[in-house]
Amino acid sequence: MVESRLIGPVRVVGAGLLGTSIGLGLRARGIDVILADASPTNLSIAVDYGAGRAATAGDLPQLIVVCVPPDVTAEIVARELAAYPRAIVTDVASVKLAPLQELRVLGADVSRYIGGHPMAGRERGGPLAGRADLFVGRPWVVAAHDAISYQQATAIDDLILDLGAILVEMSPEEHDRAVALISHVPQVVSTIMARRLTDSAGSALNLAGQGLRDVTRVAASDPELWVQILGANAEPVRDILLAYRVDLDRFIDALEAPAAPGARRKVAEELAGGNAGVARLPGKHGQDRRFVSLSVMVDDTPGQLARLLNEIGEVGVNLEDLRLEHSPGAQLGLAEISVLPEAVGRLTEELAARGWRIAG
Amino acid sequence: MVESRLIGPVRVVGAGLLGTSIGLGLRARGIDVILADASPTNLSIAVDYGAGRAATAGDLPQLIVVCVPPDVTAEIVARELAAYPRAIVTDVASVKLAPLQELRVLGADVSRYIGGHPMAGRERGGPLAGRADLFVGRPWVVAAHDAISYQQATAIDDLILDLGAILVEMSPEEHDRAVALISHVPQVVSTIMARRLTDSAGSALNLAGQGLRDVTRVAASDPELWVQILGANAEPVRDILLAYRVDLDRFIDALEAPAAPGARRKVAEELAGGNAGVARLPGKHGQDRRFVSLSVMVDDTPGQLARLLNEIGEVGVNLEDLRLEHSPGAQLGLAEISVLPEAVGRLTEELAARGWRIAG
Repeated sequence: MVESRLIGPVRVVGAGLLGTSIGLGLRARGIDVILADASPTNLSIAVDYGAGRAATAGDLPQLIVVCVPPDVTAEIVARELAAYPRAIVTDVASVKLAPLQELRVLGADVSRYIGGHPMAGRERGGPLAGRADLFVGRPWVVAAHDAISYQQATAIDDLILDLGAILVEMSPEEHDRAVALISHVPQVVSTIMARRLTDSAGSALNLAGQGLRDVTRVAASDPELWVQILGANAEPVRDILLAYRVDLDRFIDALEAPAAPGARRKVAEELAGGNAGVARLPGKHGQDRRFVSLSVMVDDTPGQLARLLNEIGEVGVNLEDLRLEHSPGAQLGLAEISVLPEAVGRLTEELAARGWRIAG
Repeated sequence: MVESRLIGPVRVVGAGLLGTSIGLGLRARGIDVILADASPTNLSIAVDYGAGRAATAGDLPQLIVVCVPPDVTAEIVARELAAYPRAIVTDVASVKLAPLQELRVLGADVSRYIGGHPMAGRERGGPLAGRADLFVGRPWVVAAHDAISYQQATAIDDLILDLGAILVEMSPEEHDRAVALISHVPQVVSTIMARRLTDSAGSALNLAGQGLRDVTRVAASDPELWVQILGANAEPVRDILLAYRVDLDRFIDALEAPAAPGARRKVAEELAGGNAGVARLPGKHGQDRRFVSLSVMVDDTPGQLARLLNEIGEVGVNLEDLRLEHSPGAQLGLAEISVLPEAVGRLTEELAARGWRIAG
């Protein structure tokens, strides 16, 4: 076990997915974690799960992490700042300006509050979904403001380091604009697309491929949480949606008279703009062009995919990405494998020689 | 080899990805395939690749499959109908009404033409991307019209059966509305979202997670092809985009005064509508709620994922879906594994016992 730099106890308020995961991660480092939750059931599950202990009267936490829904974050942070006048308080809400403003209105001592936002989550919530490794390798935004910088809150630094996350410093405004673009607007765009499917013929949906599934995947997210997020970050989200609508209107106009002079060029420019946007995304998925993919047919049975990946390992080729695709009603799927361009020829040959069917 | 029901030769015009794949698939069934392409280079590659033979003077094809870009489909179909007065002619263009209308204007004998659209493709094009198995398990729309039904074109039925695809009969109008919804509008929505990324700060993009990547993935598609598709299906696409804009405007309005009475309810209704839309999608991805997922940490080295999947196979659990996730700058990734709910407890235990780190 690597020694933690955190010394005093850490109090985690809210034993849902994030709070429980933080507790588990810190406990694994041997840190004293004090858990609190408005629900005694949630609290006892998280304690039984090993995420920390229940609070006692004499607790003097060094750091308090508030992990409650965005709507009540400021209220709970203010309460904690008042109850523990020597502790640094942070939170994990997906918006950062609204809670800070609310705290100022409440007259809270914001010189001891610095907001945080770990870019991690799961499709499931609740303490039982908690994982000690939830934050490993993920960006964790710390939102410095006039009254405190993250250097003045070294406990935050230690927390993020202990949980294996990557500290990213931003102002609250910068954070909120960033997540509006990379998370909140994509949620809205996906939701509105998915909504179009509700009044369509089932025969149309039977033709759906991976493209539609990808575009609408996040539309399955929890409405209750998203109402809070979008409400608390309404202005940056609305600004981007207004710019989105300008582009949408241009597209709609170009399609009104698709044979008119210039209409094709307009549509082509929009499509090229989309290409350019995707190319700016960092990471393996965003830099797809560095890799080439080949699709291998696999039976829909246990062990088949393992055998394939085993043999790719034997060939000595590193898998850069992998996706499974299933056809409706088919007993087989396609494993789409991304590898470096220089490896694809050899891999294709070797797999074919081992009897794999290379598909489309 | 299963005997084909196709007897006469099949002529494939256009030796790109789809034409070559059709040729390869039919050749594997022992059918005489005649290839034609405006580019002698493409043609010779496809012939060398085993997708068929070059045309000769006395050829009498039973069936002709035109596999050229949407823009020139009607022109080539008309030419083939005239050149081979006893053959049935089909095509693979992603729009179905425009080519039929154009053929009628050209005075072609549409009683021998029935449009088709296999719902299959790859990110790469060209004859070398062709695969005999490209169509296996995929829907293949046949667009019947007044002058011909697919029952009158049994060769089409045989073609689709031979290639392992699933025949879906629709009118050209019904097809075009369906693909506008499930393919063309998602393309536009994704493109416009991706375009918003072009004028954003790089620091924002570093926070991007899987949600944004999914929503914008298809925005990387080929603009030249999509200009043709959107131009040829402009009206159905525009109709859906107009409905999309109504929903978008409602969203933008609700975000203008997020604290106003009823604003939250409006946003919640939109989000719930998105949930309902996604729930209508068939297939494994669309029915995610039938499965639960767990994420396992894997090192970014060859063989690691194979070992994981091997051990999942040993445990006897069937993998319903698998996705890889990489964090920027991290040497490890997460394998998100979807399994049946009844299997997740045992699998988690068994994997943990084998030393795997179950992450968020």
